[in-house]
Amino acid sequence: MAPNTLTLNCLLEPNSVAIVGASSDPGKTPGRPVDFLKRHRFAGEILPINPNRSEIQGLACYPSLRDLPQRPDQAFIALDTDGAIAAAEEAADLGVPFVVMLANGFSEVGAEGVAREDRLRDILEGSSTRLLGPNSLGLVRPLNGLFLTANAAFAVDDIPTGRTAVISQSGSAIGGFVSRGRARGIGYSVVASVGNEVDLSVGSLGEVIVQDEHTDTIILFLESIRRAKDLERLAVAARAAEKEILVYKLGRSDVGAGLAVSHTGAIVTSDAAADAYLKDLGFHRMETFEAVFEGAALFSKTFSSSPRQHPVAAVVSTTGGGGALVADRLGVNGVRLRGATVGVKEKIKACGIEVGGGALIDLTLAGTKPDVMRAAIGAVLDDDAYDALIAVIGSSSEHFPKLAVQPIVEIVEERRNTGLKPLAVFCLPQATKALELLQQVGVAAFRTPESCADAMTERLRPAKANPNRLIDFVSPSSATKDLFTVLPDRVTEGEALDFFETMGVPVTARAFLSAVETRSGAGDLSSLTYPVVAKVASPDLAHKSEYGGVVLNLGDEDEARTAANAILETVAERAPKAQIDGVLFQHQAKAVQEVILGLTRHAEMGPLVTIGVGGVLAEIYADAVTQRAPVTPREARDMIDAVKGLAIARGYRGGPQGDLDALADAISAFSQLGVFPEIREAEINPIMVTENGVVAVDGLMSIRRNRGDDDVHRDA
Amino acid sequence: MAPNTLTLNCLLEPNSVAIVGASSDPGKTPGRPVDFLKRHRFAGEILPINPNRSEIQGLACYPSLRDLPQRPDQAFIALDTDGAIAAAEEAADLGVPFVVMLANGFSEVGAEGVAREDRLRDILEGSSTRLLGPNSLGLVRPLNGLFLTANAAFAVDDIPTGRTAVISQSGSAIGGFVSRGRARGIGYSVVASVGNEVDLSVGSLGEVIVQDEHTDTIILFLESIRRAKDLERLAVAARAAEKEILVYKLGRSDVGAGLAVSHTGAIVTSDAAADAYLKDLGFHRMETFEAVFEGAALFSKTFSSSPRQHPVAAVVSTTGGGGALVADRLGVNGVRLRGATVGVKEKIKACGIEVGGGALIDLTLAGTKPDVMRAAIGAVLDDDAYDALIAVIGSSSEHFPKLAVQPIVEIVEERRNTGLKPLAVFCLPQATKALELLQQVGVAAFRTPESCADAMTERLRPAKANPNRLIDFVSPSSATKDLFTVLPDRVTEGEALDFFETMGVPVTARAFLSAVETRSGAGDLSSLTYPVVAKVASPDLAHKSEYGGVVLNLGDEDEARTAANAILETVAERAPKAQIDGVLFQHQAKAVQEVILGLTRHAEMGPLVTIGVGGVLAEIYADAVTQRAPVTPREARDMIDAVKGLAIARGYRGGPQGDLDALADAISAFSQLGVFPEIREAEINPIMVTENGVVAVDGLMSIRRNRGDDDVHRDA
Repeated sequence: MAPNTLTLNCLLEPNSVAIVGASSDPGKTPGRPVDFLKRHRFAGEILPINPNRSEIQGLACYPSLRDLPQRPDQAFIALDTDGAIAAAEEAADLGVPFVVMLANGFSEVGAEGVAREDRLRDILEGSSTRLLGPNSLGLVRPLNGLFLTANAAFAVDDIPTGRTAVISQSGSAIGGFVSRGRARGIGYSVVASVGNEVDLSVGSLGEVIVQDEHTDTIILFLESIRRAKDLERLAVAARAAEKEILVYKLGRSDVGAGLAVSHTGAIVTSDAAADAYLKDLGFHRMETFEAVFEGAALFSKTFSSSPRQHPVAAVVSTTGGGGALVADRLGVNGVRLRGATVGVKEKIKACGIEVGGGALIDLTLAGTKPDVMRAAIGAVLDDDAYDALIAVIGSSSEHFPKLAVQPIVEIVEERRNTGLKPLAVFCLPQATKALELLQQVGVAAFRTPESCADAMTERLRPAKANPNRLIDFVSPSSATKDLFTVLPDRVTEGEALDFFETMGVPVTARAFLSAVETRSGAGDLSSLTYPVVAKVASPDLAHKSEYGGVVLNLGDEDEARTAANAILETVAERAPKAQIDGVLFQHQAKAVQEVILGLTRHAEMGPLVTIGVGGVLAEIYADAVTQRAPVTPREARDMIDAVKGLAIARGYRGGPQGDLDALADAISAFSQLGVFPEIREAEINPIMVTENGVVAVDGLMSIRRNRGDDDVHRDA
Repeated sequence: MAPNTLTLNCLLEPNSVAIVGASSDPGKTPGRPVDFLKRHRFAGEILPINPNRSEIQGLACYPSLRDLPQRPDQAFIALDTDGAIAAAEEAADLGVPFVVMLANGFSEVGAEGVAREDRLRDILEGSSTRLLGPNSLGLVRPLNGLFLTANAAFAVDDIPTGRTAVISQSGSAIGGFVSRGRARGIGYSVVASVGNEVDLSVGSLGEVIVQDEHTDTIILFLESIRRAKDLERLAVAARAAEKEILVYKLGRSDVGAGLAVSHTGAIVTSDAAADAYLKDLGFHRMETFEAVFEGAALFSKTFSSSPRQHPVAAVVSTTGGGGALVADRLGVNGVRLRGATVGVKEKIKACGIEVGGGALIDLTLAGTKPDVMRAAIGAVLDDDAYDALIAVIGSSSEHFPKLAVQPIVEIVEERRNTGLKPLAVFCLPQATKALELLQQVGVAAFRTPESCADAMTERLRPAKANPNRLIDFVSPSSATKDLFTVLPDRVTEGEALDFFETMGVPVTARAFLSAVETRSGAGDLSSLTYPVVAKVASPDLAHKSEYGGVVLNLGDEDEARTAANAILETVAERAPKAQIDGVLFQHQAKAVQEVILGLTRHAEMGPLVTIGVGGVLAEIYADAVTQRAPVTPREARDMIDAVKGLAIARGYRGGPQGDLDALADAISAFSQLGVFPEIREAEINPIMVTENGVVAVDGLMSIRRNRGDDDVHRDA
């Protein structure tokens, strides 16, 4: 993919826009862009293109892009599939910097559409033209009337502006954002639909938009993780610009994931992996649709105070019932609440109100006075006991927003540049005017208690230690490289463990006897400490015990050798076709808990490391945590703490504690396996966590070498 | 509590209403009820009571209730605490059938308020007066202008009526219901705030309202489970009236539960137990606030078609993105979706639209035509492949509801009395007019994809086999009764198992040796099958193995007797003060899975039975299911199926299956322990589920006898 040549000016401040295939009828799809641009008073030149007209909607019309007096800054192509491709070719020849393509008939319709996309890529190759689409519903910049869209959702006059940009893989979702936002005073700085992402992707468009001084936050509506490298660049750019990215992503359920795929032909992604990936990029994912646009203001620089590691929120209410709706959901989300401190009580008491105990700061109906609300909000903002504040306003907010809503507006205005604590408002009644008042000064105001609590929860989630880092593998040791070179594609358990050991993963003491040594009584077992377990070594048998390939509790060398011979006999009988290399002996460690550790490789997201509790029950509960590889020991420790079932290793009910620092080191070392692109999958199951260390006791690895050279590690 | 003497007429159709403490100023709280009643054209007589006025707001005013020319049908007491109590006394003397009391200063303020509530109860005792409150925000019947409230939320002229009643423990929540409903065309048949429930409770009020011909469904807003017996009577009445009860309950989180308690002084209830209890009553609990009032229409008789045990829903959309928002959440909720069947495809094709594959029936923008939408909706309603239908309408719903919304309205009108399938609508944009159109004909129309999916999920949840049953214990056998009579309050494991066995729970083969028999080698062990485990028998040692009180894997009688002597010695040394009765021997069963089974007793909800997976990990995951006791074997089987971790016993990945029918029988038998009110708690941990039966291997029971008589079982 070509470097991102698109500039902010080219994208958002064009001097001229050509509408290719423009129609005279503003009610028809190809007639809308000219109508919208005029209606919203686009400041630049509007240049309709239509070979059959000399004038369109009062503007001079040209037969083709080539016939224009000058090269336009942008072109919106409203033609159908074939005409659109031809127009794109013309635009690329001319070097029109930015082109939007509405047409469908591409990869979403199958093979012939995929070929059309290849054709588009060929057209763009080497040109300075960047294309949004095809299948894009367009790009809108309400601030300067740049309405590059034919979407009926924009057929209203009062589209508000705002400081949040929306970039969406779903075209229809942008209508939802605009219409719902408009109904409560939320506008956007940019709204863009990326369509099939043949050229510009969510990430590469975002990388440009994040530099916009009128944009505080960016919302991404994702159907799936596509063009991951672009998303990673967006993450870096957002970090540099100190702006936050919010995400709503479909695919929580398999159904949703399936829908995304059938819509887009994108790679199926497990949602948990996508979740880990987005978190790793420092993005904020929301589960409810309204939370993502209602909550965007919470992530602006106005509320830049950083919550502590274990944040505490205050709920200040004029309605106990309404406050409880939000508080209950915050509790489910795991956010800690604190009632009124002595200091807060005193400041409120100075207004004549006694606040009771309990988790809410409930002013009751008495709080619906400007001075009381001012005092309460001010007191919480000034008190170090709180990291965040949610105000819940009752009936008064509907008809008398001056009483308890306006004071919040004023405090935010007064303290705008002081690094305010995250502050959100929920109104119990339908209080449209109040929501508008709040949103207009950049305060997140929510229509439902659930979206309010969920957005605040995400705002308070501790940031990753090292967000937005690029994948950063260290070069493997020469021992590791040498061993990797000679490893066969089908690796035995022993070979996998040997390899993991060179990576720095502690592996159980072990010894190996070949089949010949086993039968002849030769080979050296002196390194073993007993008791040991004997396991058949075979690249063909994943479930060894089913073939009689495992014998436990061997107390001395005699027992070990006898068992080995028995194993070879039984396995030969039960799995006559399997390749049998010999028998592996391992010390039988006694674990505080058994952990499973895996590495997988995702086509878009790259190598991912997963940890979970060993055993069937943990598998049933799907209690595992996934993270992009590699992870530092500190990140690994965070993963460990996020696995619920590892409560046992953390020392359950006074039981012994496992050495979780050693486990974190092992996870970190293991995650470096991702440096080898040929490793498709690797697993340690289990790694035993003891009171003073960890040992891997079983491993597997699957390699697919598809390159002839020896350059086996990927550069950062 | 007196029987429910309140009639529907008395409650909702009074001929006269006295306002005690009425004020001339309609802007002040005591002035509002008269103003509201006049403004909403209450058809009966309005009788202001105020000793200092002869006329109030244009109406003749009387000095006291006693001075009225006739006894009023209702009285609204707008006086403060002490005056309110005096007025209530006057009303009770006169026998005013229904009184609403607004005053606070009762149990919510501590001991002196509790005493005031006792005084109120004394006043009501023996009278024919029923009281709503204190701390009640009142009762409103928009249909006939009966606005018995001083709540500012009703200070608007256009309060719509509807066919859903709201009964709320939270006063402020009713403002939320009314205001939010009003904004999207949802009205109510009755809105009532129960306050402190000193006399009329949520349940007893509901029992009257459920008979109202203008009420299809009832919404309960609960802070906690109070006056459970009344709720149970409401459940029976609702069943008889074939009306559904919807519930929003605070206390999902500990925070929420705590809030409810501090507000009301109610008993703390574990939310899981409350959940089971509400389900057992056949009530429908919703998790999101808007789902409960937006979704009520889904539960009316208009949509009375019963879904199959494993229901299948269709999502018909004009916007793939919007459809995916709902479908994704349905998927998370576990609702199965089905795309277009061949039949549905054909009927839609007849309108010129080709519907693709996938889980949605996505008509795309082409579906925004009345005939296409009619065809699609009709086809799904006629097709037995679907149990329910959700229509998701895009941008057109905002400005052009005639295109795709009106056809849904018309189909529902045409088929109103044909037992329609559950049908819901979500509009992707802010489409207030469309929501109103739909709600007005009784179609559930949702503002958020989450509330839409959640309400439909609850509508499709299979009904309990036997909802609304009263607790129905069978009389214990005489063997059980006799044994219970002689059981000490501190019961040993062996005694508990003996008792459970008389109840019909299979218990492992066992034998007991007293301490004397153990030491002398006497006693009979011939009933044992080996291997056995030996355990010390002591009412003082809950964790026997910590004191050396358990020895496993004893292969024959010699080993058993030797181990028993060793146990007595070790335990005597480690727990010198414990009472040691002897040693219990049990056959060591090999289980497919170990299950834990418990019975607890809740002050309001009565005996509850809980099952879960045995072991530490399951405890960490809190994987358990609670149900009201007793349960039938069929209900027990449903409980088993709801425990995720019992996947192992259900036959995991081709592994052996446990005898779950035997487990269901054992749970059912064990749940009958609830018949003894003296049993505070009982537990079997574990009961082993084998391939052909179950056996309880360890048990405990805690008894508190607080009565002198022998009538130990409670009547149904």
